[in-house]
Amino acid sequence: MSDHRDYYRGRKILVTGGLGFIGSNLCRTLADLGAAVTAVDSLLPDYGGNLFNLDGYEQKVRINIADVRGHGMEYLVRGHEVLFNLAGQVSHIDSMTDPVTDLEINCTSQLRLLEAVRRGNPELRVVYAGTRQVYGRPLYLPVDEKHLLQPVDVNGINKISGEFYHLVYHQVYGIRASSLRLTNTYGPRQLIRHNRQGFIGWFVRQAALGEEIQIFGDGSQKRDFNHVDDVTDAFLRAGAGDAALGQVLNLGDTRPVSLLELVKLLLDVAGGGSFKVVPFPPERKRIDIGDFYADITRVRETLGWAPRIALRDGLAETVAFYRRHKEHYL
Amino acid sequence: MSDHRDYYRGRKILVTGGLGFIGSNLCRTLADLGAAVTAVDSLLPDYGGNLFNLDGYEQKVRINIADVRGHGMEYLVRGHEVLFNLAGQVSHIDSMTDPVTDLEINCTSQLRLLEAVRRGNPELRVVYAGTRQVYGRPLYLPVDEKHLLQPVDVNGINKISGEFYHLVYHQVYGIRASSLRLTNTYGPRQLIRHNRQGFIGWFVRQAALGEEIQIFGDGSQKRDFNHVDDVTDAFLRAGAGDAALGQVLNLGDTRPVSLLELVKLLLDVAGGGSFKVVPFPPERKRIDIGDFYADITRVRETLGWAPRIALRDGLAETVAFYRRHKEHYL
Repeated sequence: MSDHRDYYRGRKILVTGGLGFIGSNLCRTLADLGAAVTAVDSLLPDYGGNLFNLDGYEQKVRINIADVRGHGMEYLVRGHEVLFNLAGQVSHIDSMTDPVTDLEINCTSQLRLLEAVRRGNPELRVVYAGTRQVYGRPLYLPVDEKHLLQPVDVNGINKISGEFYHLVYHQVYGIRASSLRLTNTYGPRQLIRHNRQGFIGWFVRQAALGEEIQIFGDGSQKRDFNHVDDVTDAFLRAGAGDAALGQVLNLGDTRPVSLLELVKLLLDVAGGGSFKVVPFPPERKRIDIGDFYADITRVRETLGWAPRIALRDGLAETVAFYRRHKEHYL
Repeated sequence: MSDHRDYYRGRKILVTGGLGFIGSNLCRTLADLGAAVTAVDSLLPDYGGNLFNLDGYEQKVRINIADVRGHGMEYLVRGHEVLFNLAGQVSHIDSMTDPVTDLEINCTSQLRLLEAVRRGNPELRVVYAGTRQVYGRPLYLPVDEKHLLQPVDVNGINKISGEFYHLVYHQVYGIRASSLRLTNTYGPRQLIRHNRQGFIGWFVRQAALGEEIQIFGDGSQKRDFNHVDDVTDAFLRAGAGDAALGQVLNLGDTRPVSLLELVKLLLDVAGGGSFKVVPFPPERKRIDIGDFYADITRVRETLGWAPRIALRDGLAETVAFYRRHKEHYL
C-alpha cells in the first residue's frame, strides 16, 4: 500500500480556513507533497487567519480571500478533488456574546457549502474539522464517539450542526464527507493574540514571552493535546481515501496531562517563567468541561492514525517558533 | 397539590406557532382555563398556520401575525409568564429541498428568540416543541432520552440545535427552558392540505375523504401516536412548574402500532375506504427511520404525564372533525 501522502501529488485541493492555524499547516504540507492547493480564508480579524502563516509558500499555494458566508464557494468547489473544510468561528466565549455570527459561520455557511458541493462537484471528498466540544462535560473517560452530545455553549451546538450536515449529505446524496473531532491542538501558526480561542495557545504565548501564566481552577483538569503536524496527518489520511466516509472520528491522545503538568512542562522547555492558580472567571466557569480526553480507537482502526509527536518536543518547537516570529503573532 | 391546569388562570401566556396544529389547540385550552393568551404566527403558506384553527376564539385569544425570523419578538416576549415555543418548519422533505429556510426558522429564529428572552424577560418559562426526529433511525426500542442523536435529514439537525440552544441558555443564563420531544401527533386542526408534514395527517385526510390510502414500504413499520389533547396536556404540565427545567422529555406511547394497523383502524372508524401498499419514493426512503416508539418513563416521573386518549377514539373524533370542517383544511 502506498503512503497516504503520495496520494496528493498533482491533486487539486481546496482548504477553507487555509490561512488559519491548522489550515495553513495543512496547506504547507500539501504543497510540499506536490498538490495544487487553494487556500480560502476571510482573514476576519481575531479569527486566526494570518498571511504570515503561508510565509514562503506564496508561490506554492493559491490564496483566495473570501468569506464562506458569502457567494463564491459555488465556483471555488468546482474542479477540486478534496476539500479540507476548516473555516469556522472557534471561540466558545465569542459564541456566547455573539451567537448569531457563530451560527452564520458554523451552520449557514456549512449548509451552503454542502449545497454547492452537491450541485457543482458531487464527487468531491470533504473532510470537516469537528470538535470534541460537541460532547460537553464527559460522562465517562476516555470519551468515544458513542458518547452523548451535550454541548455546553452555542459554539458546541453549531459545530454539531455543521458536522451533521456533512453526515446527512453523505447519507442522502452520497457526498463523500467525513468529520474529525479535534481535541486541543497546539503548534506553530496558532492565534495567540487574544485568549478567546482556548487556553493552549495562550499558555504557549505566555511561556514564550515570559509572562506569568494564569491557570483557572486548581490545575488538576486533565486534557489531551495534539501537535498540529499530527492533526495535519490525520486530515491527509482522511482525505486520501474512502475509509472514513460518513464517519466521525475522534482525534486525541490516550496520555492526558493535567493543566498543571502542562504548564510545568511549558516553563521547563521555555527555560523559566512563572505561573499562578486563580479562580475561574464566571463566564468561563459556566462553559468549562472539566476533564477530557478522547478514545482514539476508531481513528486508529479506520485510518491507522495515532499521534506521534511527544508533548515535550512539540512544545519546545512551538515556543521556539513564536519567539522567532513573535512580531507576526502579537 | 392543585391541578396543573389551575395554574393558568389569569396568566399571560405567549404561544409561537399559535395558529398551527398543536399551537392552536393549546391556545384554545389555555383560553378555556382563563389565561390571557397571545398567539404569534406567520401564516406562511403550507406551514400549518390557519386562522380557522382559532375559530370561535377570536375574542379570547390575541392573534399577532409575525414571522419569528424578523424583529418583534424582543417586544412580544415581555410581560409574559410562559412561552410555548411551537413555531417551526416541520417538513422533513422541505428541509432537504430548501435547507437554508429550515435553518433560518428552526435555528436562527430560536437563537434570536432566546436572546430576546435573556435580555427582555429572563424569568419567562419556556417550553420548546422538540421532536423524536432528532434520534434518527433507532438503535434500540423503545427510545429513551439517552439514545444517540443521529438525525437523518436537515430538519432533524436543525431541531437539535433549536433544542440545545434552550438547554444551553438554561445552563449558562438560567433561562427556565425545557423541551418536549414529540412523536407523531394527530387530531383536529392539523395541516392536511399536502403530505409533506408527515403521514398521519395525510392518512386521516384520505380516510375522512374516502381517498385511497397509500402506505409506503410494507406497512409493518411500528410507530407511536399521541392525540393533540394529550400533547397539549404535556405542554401545560411542563409550563406550570419548574420540574422540567433544563430537561428534554420524550412524549410518545408505549403501545406502538404498525402503519397497516393504523390504516385499518382509520378505515374502520371512517366507515369504509381502501388502501394500497406501494414502494417508497426514493426521496422519502432516504430519510425514513423505520420502527420508532418512545420510552416515556422520564416524562411520567417528571410531570406525571401519560397519554390517555385511546387511538381508536381519537381517530374517530379526528375524522369527524375534518368531515365537518373540510372546506377550511383543503
